Amino acid sequence: MQQVKVVGVGMTKFGKFLDRSIKDLGVEAVQAALADAGLKKEDLQAAFVGSAVMGLITGQECIRGQVILRHMGIGDIPVINLENACASASTAFHQAWMAIASGLYDVVLALGIEKLYHQDKAKSFNALAAAVDVEEHAQGSKAQEGGLPSRSMFMDLYAGLAIKHMEKYGTTREQFAKVAVKNHYNGCLNPHAQYQKECTVEEVLNSPLIVYPLTLLMCSPLGDGAAAAILCSPQFAKRASSKPINVAATILKSGMERDITTPSLIERAARQAYEIAGLGAEDVNIAEVHDATTPAELFAYEDLDLCPKGEGGWLIDEGKTWLGGSIPVNTSGGLCAKGHPVGASGLAQIAEVVWQLRGHAGQRQVKGAKVGLTQNAGGWIGNDTAAGTVSIFTI
Amino acid sequence: MQQVKVVGVGMTKFGKFLDRSIKDLGVEAVQAALADAGLKKEDLQAAFVGSAVMGLITGQECIRGQVILRHMGIGDIPVINLENACASASTAFHQAWMAIASGLYDVVLALGIEKLYHQDKAKSFNALAAAVDVEEHAQGSKAQEGGLPSRSMFMDLYAGLAIKHMEKYGTTREQFAKVAVKNHYNGCLNPHAQYQKECTVEEVLNSPLIVYPLTLLMCSPLGDGAAAAILCSPQFAKRASSKPINVAATILKSGMERDITTPSLIERAARQAYEIAGLGAEDVNIAEVHDATTPAELFAYEDLDLCPKGEGGWLIDEGKTWLGGSIPVNTSGGLCAKGHPVGASGLAQIAEVVWQLRGHAGQRQVKGAKVGLTQNAGGWIGNDTAAGTVSIFTI
Repeated sequence: MQQVKVVGVGMTKFGKFLDRSIKDLGVEAVQAALADAGLKKEDLQAAFVGSAVMGLITGQECIRGQVILRHMGIGDIPVINLENACASASTAFHQAWMAIASGLYDVVLALGIEKLYHQDKAKSFNALAAAVDVEEHAQGSKAQEGGLPSRSMFMDLYAGLAIKHMEKYGTTREQFAKVAVKNHYNGCLNPHAQYQKECTVEEVLNSPLIVYPLTLLMCSPLGDGAAAAILCSPQFAKRASSKPINVAATILKSGMERDITTPSLIERAARQAYEIAGLGAEDVNIAEVHDATTPAELFAYEDLDLCPKGEGGWLIDEGKTWLGGSIPVNTSGGLCAKGHPVGASGLAQIAEVVWQLRGHAGQRQVKGAKVGLTQNAGGWIGNDTAAGTVSIFTI
Repeated sequence: MQQVKVVGVGMTKFGKFLDRSIKDLGVEAVQAALADAGLKKEDLQAAFVGSAVMGLITGQECIRGQVILRHMGIGDIPVINLENACASASTAFHQAWMAIASGLYDVVLALGIEKLYHQDKAKSFNALAAAVDVEEHAQGSKAQEGGLPSRSMFMDLYAGLAIKHMEKYGTTREQFAKVAVKNHYNGCLNPHAQYQKECTVEEVLNSPLIVYPLTLLMCSPLGDGAAAAILCSPQFAKRASSKPINVAATILKSGMERDITTPSLIERAARQAYEIAGLGAEDVNIAEVHDATTPAELFAYEDLDLCPKGEGGWLIDEGKTWLGGSIPVNTSGGLCAKGHPVGASGLAQIAEVVWQLRGHAGQRQVKGAKVGLTQNAGGWIGNDTAAGTVSIFTI
C-alpha cells in the first residue's frame, strides 16, 4: 500500500444556515479545499461524501454527493455516499485514504456535509435519534410515549456516562465546565467557529440545565456546514501548491458488546493507530477530539492515553490541554464552540490538524506541532460507540 | 493491487415482508453467504453495507450495518454504510472489492438490504423520489402540487426514454412485453424470486397501464430483501469451501452532463470494464442487468454492446437473451420477476452470476458459462444515471 498525503483542506463556517442549500455549503467546502491544494476539479478521480441525517431534514437521500458535485460541474467519477452517524465525515476520509493507499487512484476528494437545522427543532432532534438501534430504543424507551423529544437523546446518554465518571473518579462539574471555557476561548480564535464568545466556569455552570450534570454550554449545538479534504499519492502531491501532510494512520471501528474489561471503541482504535503510526500518545502535539459534550472530551483524554484512566479532570485542571499546555486539545474550539454539523465534523477536525501541522492556524497556532491526532465518534449501540475513527497525521 | 475472489453469496427470497425487520433479513443473507463460503463470522475483517431508502421507511438511518451485524454478534470491525440509490449494493460490492484489492484486508463482507414496503404505499413511492435532485425536481414538477404520487416517478422517466427509443428505432411495445415474458419465465425457475408465474405477451400488454407505454408487468415491483457476498484475497480463498469466482473488473461511475455525442454512464462503465478485464461483449456468457422496467433491459443490451445501437428489440425478438440463447440475460428473473428491493438488487445480481459460473443455478443453469456480467443503475441526475456499476466475473 502506498503512502497517503493530504494536500488540501477547506470548510464553511459552521452555523445556522436555514437559507443555504446542501449545494451551497458543499461546493464552498470543496472549492476551498481545491484552492488550498492548488488543484482543479478536473484533477479529482473519485469522491467520498459523508453525511448523517440531512436526508431526514432536506429530503435528499441516496445521491447526495452527486447532487452537490454536479452543481460545480463534477461528473462521471465514482461518487460514494457514506453514513456513520457523527463519524460520517471521518468514515469518508478513511475510505478516501484506502482509495489512495490501494494505488487505484492518484487524487480523491473526501467531503462531509450536514444540514441539521430545521424550522421545527424537534425534527432535528428526532433525526439524531436515528443514530442508535431505533427498534431497540423504541421498545425500551418510555420517552417515545411522550411525543417529540425536547433535546437530543444523546445528551441523556452522555449525562449518564458523566455521572458514572464523577462517581468512580471524583470528577467534578467544574472540570466539565473548564473544558467548555477552554473550547469557547479557542473558538474565539477560529473564524470558522459557530460561536466566538468567551465564557467563565460560572457562566457554564449557570447556563440552562440540559440534563444533570450537563448545562447548555457543555453541549455541542445544532449546526449546518461542510468540510473537505483532498488526498493524494506522494507522486501526485508534488503537483500541489501546499505542504503535504502525511496520514500516518487512520483506523475505523464499530461498536462491540463489552464488559468492564473490554476497552471502548476509541481505546481500541487508538491503540491500533499508535501501533501503525509507530508513535505513542507522548508524541502527539495536538488533538481534535469528539466533544459532543464536554465530559466526552475528558473521556477522550483517557481513551487516547493522553493521561491515565480517571485523570481527565486533572489534565484540564492543570491546563495541559489549553493552548500553551503540553498537549493542546480542540484548538479549533471543538464541537462545543466550532459547532457540530454531525456529518461534517470529522473532516473539520482534520482541517484543523492540517492547518496546525502546516503552521497556518493563525492566533491559535501551536508552535512546532509535528504530530496531530483526530478522534471522531458516531452513534451508540449496546454499550459502545457505534462507529468511530482515530487518525494520526505527521509533517 | 491484488486479485479479488468472491467465495460466498447468499440472499433472502425477495418479496413483501411487512413483519420482517432489517435485522431478520440482513442476518439471513449474511449467514447464507458465510455458509456458502464455509467461513465463520469471526473471519470477517470489514463490512460494507448498502441500502437506499429504508431509513425513510423504518426510521433506521446512520448505523444500519452496525444494527444488523450486532444482531448476529459481529462487532469491532469497520462497518461502512453506503448509499447510491438503486446501485447501493453494487457500490458496497465495489468498495469491498477495493478493500481486498488494496491488500488492507483478507476477507470482507458486502451486504445490500432494503425494506421498501410500507402499509402506506405512497410512503414507499415518495421514498424512491429521494434518488433524484429533490430541489431541482421540486422546482420543476407540478406533480408536487397534486399531493402524493400514485407511482414511482422513475416510471415516468423510463416511459419517456422508452418512447424516444420507439420513435428513433421503431422499437415496439410487444418487444418490451417480450422482455417481461422472458424474465417472468426465468423467475419461475428461481426459488428466491418474488414472482413465480409465467405470462404471455398479451397478458403483459393487457396488464394495468402504469404510464404509456409501460404496463404493470413491464415494471419491477416494490420489494423487501437482502443479498450478500464474501470477498477475499486469492490466498484466503484457499480456506473457503466454495469454488472462488474472480472479479475481473468492477467499475463505478456517476452521472455527467451530456449531449447526444456523449455515451451514457452505463456505456462508459462498460467500456472501461471490458478494457480492464481484457474481454469484449462477445466473451460474455450471461448478464444480469438493471431491468427496473423492461425497456431498460433493451437499453442495457445496447449500452453493454451486446448488440448495436437500436437493435435491442431485435435481440429479444430473436430469442438471443432467453435461456438457450447465445447470451442469456436476467436468468434470475431480473428486477421485474425476482423483485427489486433497491438497496439489495446489485448484490442479488452478483449472487446469480456467481451461481451460474459455479454451475449451481439449478433449472436455469446456462451450460458452460465462464464469463458473467452485472449492470446496476441508481437514481437519475440531469440527463444521466446518477450512479451505476458494471462488473465482470470469470471462473
